[in-house]
Amino acid sequence: MKLIDFRKTDLTDGFWKKQVDVVSEVSVYNVYKRFEETGRFAALNCTWKKGDPYEPHIFWDSDIAKWIESVAFIIEKRPCPELEKVVDEVAVVMENNADEYGYFNSCYLVHDKPRWSDRTDHELYCAGHLVEAAVAYYVATGKRKLLDVMEKYLDYIYQVFVVDGSADFITPGHEEIELALIKLYDLTKNEKYLDLCSFFIDNRGNSTDKEYPGVAHKYSQSHLPVREQKTAEGHCVRACYLYTGMADLARLTGDKELSDACKAIFDDIIYRKMYITGGIGSAGRGEAFTIPYDLPDLTAYSESCAALSLAWFAQRMLLIENDSKYADTIEKVLYNNGLSSVSRDGKAFFYVNPLAIRTHLLERNTSQENTHENLTITQRKEVFDCSCCPPNITRFIASVADFLYTYDEDTVYVHQYMASETKTENFCISQKTSYPDNGKIEIRTGNIRNIAVRIPGWCEKYTLSVNGRNEDVEIINGYAYIKNLSSESVIMLDFDMTPFVVYPTSKIKDYISRAAVQRGPVVYCAEGADNNFPIMAFRLNTDTEFEEEYSDFYGTYTLTATGRIPLEKEELYSRRKEEMIDTKVRLIPYFGFANNGESDMEVFLYY
Amino acid sequence: MKLIDFRKTDLTDGFWKKQVDVVSEVSVYNVYKRFEETGRFAALNCTWKKGDPYEPHIFWDSDIAKWIESVAFIIEKRPCPELEKVVDEVAVVMENNADEYGYFNSCYLVHDKPRWSDRTDHELYCAGHLVEAAVAYYVATGKRKLLDVMEKYLDYIYQVFVVDGSADFITPGHEEIELALIKLYDLTKNEKYLDLCSFFIDNRGNSTDKEYPGVAHKYSQSHLPVREQKTAEGHCVRACYLYTGMADLARLTGDKELSDACKAIFDDIIYRKMYITGGIGSAGRGEAFTIPYDLPDLTAYSESCAALSLAWFAQRMLLIENDSKYADTIEKVLYNNGLSSVSRDGKAFFYVNPLAIRTHLLERNTSQENTHENLTITQRKEVFDCSCCPPNITRFIASVADFLYTYDEDTVYVHQYMASETKTENFCISQKTSYPDNGKIEIRTGNIRNIAVRIPGWCEKYTLSVNGRNEDVEIINGYAYIKNLSSESVIMLDFDMTPFVVYPTSKIKDYISRAAVQRGPVVYCAEGADNNFPIMAFRLNTDTEFEEEYSDFYGTYTLTATGRIPLEKEELYSRRKEEMIDTKVRLIPYFGFANNGESDMEVFLYY
Repeated sequence: MKLIDFRKTDLTDGFWKKQVDVVSEVSVYNVYKRFEETGRFAALNCTWKKGDPYEPHIFWDSDIAKWIESVAFIIEKRPCPELEKVVDEVAVVMENNADEYGYFNSCYLVHDKPRWSDRTDHELYCAGHLVEAAVAYYVATGKRKLLDVMEKYLDYIYQVFVVDGSADFITPGHEEIELALIKLYDLTKNEKYLDLCSFFIDNRGNSTDKEYPGVAHKYSQSHLPVREQKTAEGHCVRACYLYTGMADLARLTGDKELSDACKAIFDDIIYRKMYITGGIGSAGRGEAFTIPYDLPDLTAYSESCAALSLAWFAQRMLLIENDSKYADTIEKVLYNNGLSSVSRDGKAFFYVNPLAIRTHLLERNTSQENTHENLTITQRKEVFDCSCCPPNITRFIASVADFLYTYDEDTVYVHQYMASETKTENFCISQKTSYPDNGKIEIRTGNIRNIAVRIPGWCEKYTLSVNGRNEDVEIINGYAYIKNLSSESVIMLDFDMTPFVVYPTSKIKDYISRAAVQRGPVVYCAEGADNNFPIMAFRLNTDTEFEEEYSDFYGTYTLTATGRIPLEKEELYSRRKEEMIDTKVRLIPYFGFANNGESDMEVFLYY
Repeated sequence: MKLIDFRKTDLTDGFWKKQVDVVSEVSVYNVYKRFEETGRFAALNCTWKKGDPYEPHIFWDSDIAKWIESVAFIIEKRPCPELEKVVDEVAVVMENNADEYGYFNSCYLVHDKPRWSDRTDHELYCAGHLVEAAVAYYVATGKRKLLDVMEKYLDYIYQVFVVDGSADFITPGHEEIELALIKLYDLTKNEKYLDLCSFFIDNRGNSTDKEYPGVAHKYSQSHLPVREQKTAEGHCVRACYLYTGMADLARLTGDKELSDACKAIFDDIIYRKMYITGGIGSAGRGEAFTIPYDLPDLTAYSESCAALSLAWFAQRMLLIENDSKYADTIEKVLYNNGLSSVSRDGKAFFYVNPLAIRTHLLERNTSQENTHENLTITQRKEVFDCSCCPPNITRFIASVADFLYTYDEDTVYVHQYMASETKTENFCISQKTSYPDNGKIEIRTGNIRNIAVRIPGWCEKYTLSVNGRNEDVEIINGYAYIKNLSSESVIMLDFDMTPFVVYPTSKIKDYISRAAVQRGPVVYCAEGADNNFPIMAFRLNTDTEFEEEYSDFYGTYTLTATGRIPLEKEELYSRRKEEMIDTKVRLIPYFGFANNGESDMEVFLYY
């Protein structure tokens, strides 16, 4: 199975075209400006010395790398000469500052710390992101400088880790380079990169790996050899980047043990450890997966980067086996935790994406005090000290069309619905749709024999016609298979977009007697700003009819539902149930929360 | 209004007699043993030096003091010569080790730290508890040694704080001495003690007080002059000991500003900051009051000492104004958080009294990790490093009959119901009752003209007869007033003890859609040990009939209620509500939780 990469697709007017435009016209510039202002670009000069402002940090090269990758993705579709110039300058600076062996890490180069001495540092993580950036920039522009710098650097890494074994650790403390190496291998077909990737994956969690210093076993997925790992553990982003690399390697090598581990881990996430928004990571401490069904809303960590990494893991799984649970998960991330990461205007970002905000608990002196130390959760910020999320979101959205299709010899698989036109060497396919505003999708195919279209997991009613005839088609693993198409065909899909109520399992203690509202893939929330009562105490009528109103600001519909709120009493505890009065609640897409000032917010409403 | 102190009352066979027996026969010995084993008695010798085990701690004198007070209370009713001998020895040791000025603090005496230099230390707190102990021991035995030691010490304290102003602070960092001084004043009528109490209370939170080092303003109730304080703030035990002293002083001086502050603060607690169990303190951090309606169950701190201190505060308020909200609060503490503090066998104690235990969240690696660092919440312990609670509980229960009655010139007020016989110089009163097993109480009075009996706040149906005639009586502030009794009268009360469901206000986010069960004053809980399903997911039928079964182990009834539990599904989120199957839940008195091994526990059940 292969991906149709986003470069072959033009998004046409529609929901995702607008998001990509915002990222391309605003976010990427804003991230640049903030990185410039906070010394991240200057750090690459490696001239920082003690006493200077903006001390280079071990993560910073990766921030720049993700920004470069965003630029590379954006210039595939629109020229941005001034951004391209910045990247060209970075390539020169890196070439000049890499040492004779090719080593480049701006933080290590200006500090005295011996390289490869601390597994908890992020040298290999930064290298991985720079490799991804170099690949993307070369593909976009044909310019080799950055790629040459990184290939030389990788030769050195290969020598240190594989040939000499001279580093103080065997596998990276923060995974990422594994999936980057696969991208470089896909580009170059140089087996050395596949070898290096296998080296890092195969050695992870082996007894020799564990004995190296600085290993927090589960935190960095080093508690077991990867093929024995069956549950998602530890720091979410590290975990899903590793799982993505594992799935890549399993696909390329046909390693069934490895793909089985990936399948088990993926199921562990979506059946036990995932928020309804596609978010992962219940605990701020360790930014980590915790135990099954431990998914608090108020203290959800649900880091932006973690949700994106889950989408990439799911995407790689689709290349191993076609099952709609993967594309459903991607869709969850796309329309919820992924998009909530960035403000409507594209300027500001969330690191943490809670599923409830109770402003009265945010002041000091409450039982929730310091839940998310040093992180804002009520308003997005333009930059963070640890600013991994902003450039990650820009590269994610800029390449969002990557999630649309996969194909094999005789079938094209349609995973997501976005107004778009796609041309490959052998076939073409387009979608006309206002999804998710409505559920109608017109898919036109050219030179495609068989097609499999995903019936979203949330959808209970739909129609499907092929060339004007309603078709009864076989559904396998959530996909409707339509075979033997004529060379030019039209498939019409119509998913019922009536909003609906979603009930979490009672195993999640925080959501008993609570329900969420979805319209298509979009999860809704209630904000205090829109409702003149304490939304926490609102009880949803689960048989409510939903009123829909289109909102330009959110780019899709807002909803109104009926319910009740309690009349206030003085007593804390009473033999009588509170009297309830009828009211309506306005619901907005979760991805749009916190765009109207600091406000209470609830995804799960009591009923 | 005056208290009838417990010395005038003999508890006869019944619920509280049994509790007092357990405390007198087991707890007080067990606390002694543990204090002996952990070096607390040896510390009084003031011979500890660096390198020795059991370094004296600044709290330790207060631990001993509360234990002495327990002994003093117990020997009022039964001879315990071996315990009395220990106290006599302590008095000698203290007399020998107090310095020439009378100063005694075993921790300060063996360390180099200059006395009265650190407001955050507990010198005055320890002194206060020792004064209480000395008063109680003198009253019980007529032996003056300890009292003499403490009176000399107080002369010195008076000199340092009031006359010389030579301490590095003005008012104690941990309040307690204020209420102790009132007890000593009540005994001696020496105005100096009233002056010293006024000095500490009047100066608290004044601008001069605040400027002293080591003041955490709200934490130690030093944020405002006490008469301007209208809300309960900071460390709960400090707070309620202060409020108790304030109420004492207001009663003695008729200071309306002070009593108004006490009333406002009391209402703030019971209408906004109190658990259904009478517990207070929502946050482990600071062991403190937080904001209104912030009363999480799982992470409740609800310290044993805090609940006791609230009962004492309420008791003092009853001496200022007769309102059943005070006695209702005392009853809440008595039958719930107060009694849960000690194990059924009297040997072990809770410091923290949670309202829910979810054992699966107690392991490391969950979002709740480290909620109560270093404290067990699933099983009581015999001793803690900070062991304030065990001797506090023993003195509280040993003197529980203190809560029964108050009186003024023409009326006796009956606040609590316990099988008992009480004789004062001028009148007598007895209760025959199996309360709380059933609601029948036969009160016999001798030489009492008017009586006011509390109709408990939880009670909606009752009958009342006087000398065999049903009476329609006036209810004022929750008390039925029966006037012009004949010199020997019989009042029969019968409170309806049918178990009932209690609904918390929706303002407490944690209890929306949840309810508790009460039978009389006793709050119930469900334990995992008694029920073969995950009790967290149980849904109570709020119209359930309750089956009652008497339990010798708990000393009252256990209950069975009907409800439903969800059938398990694999999905985390679903368009369908979970299917429910009918089941029954066994409920035990909250005070008895955690007596059958580590187990899940819930007070509030979803409905």
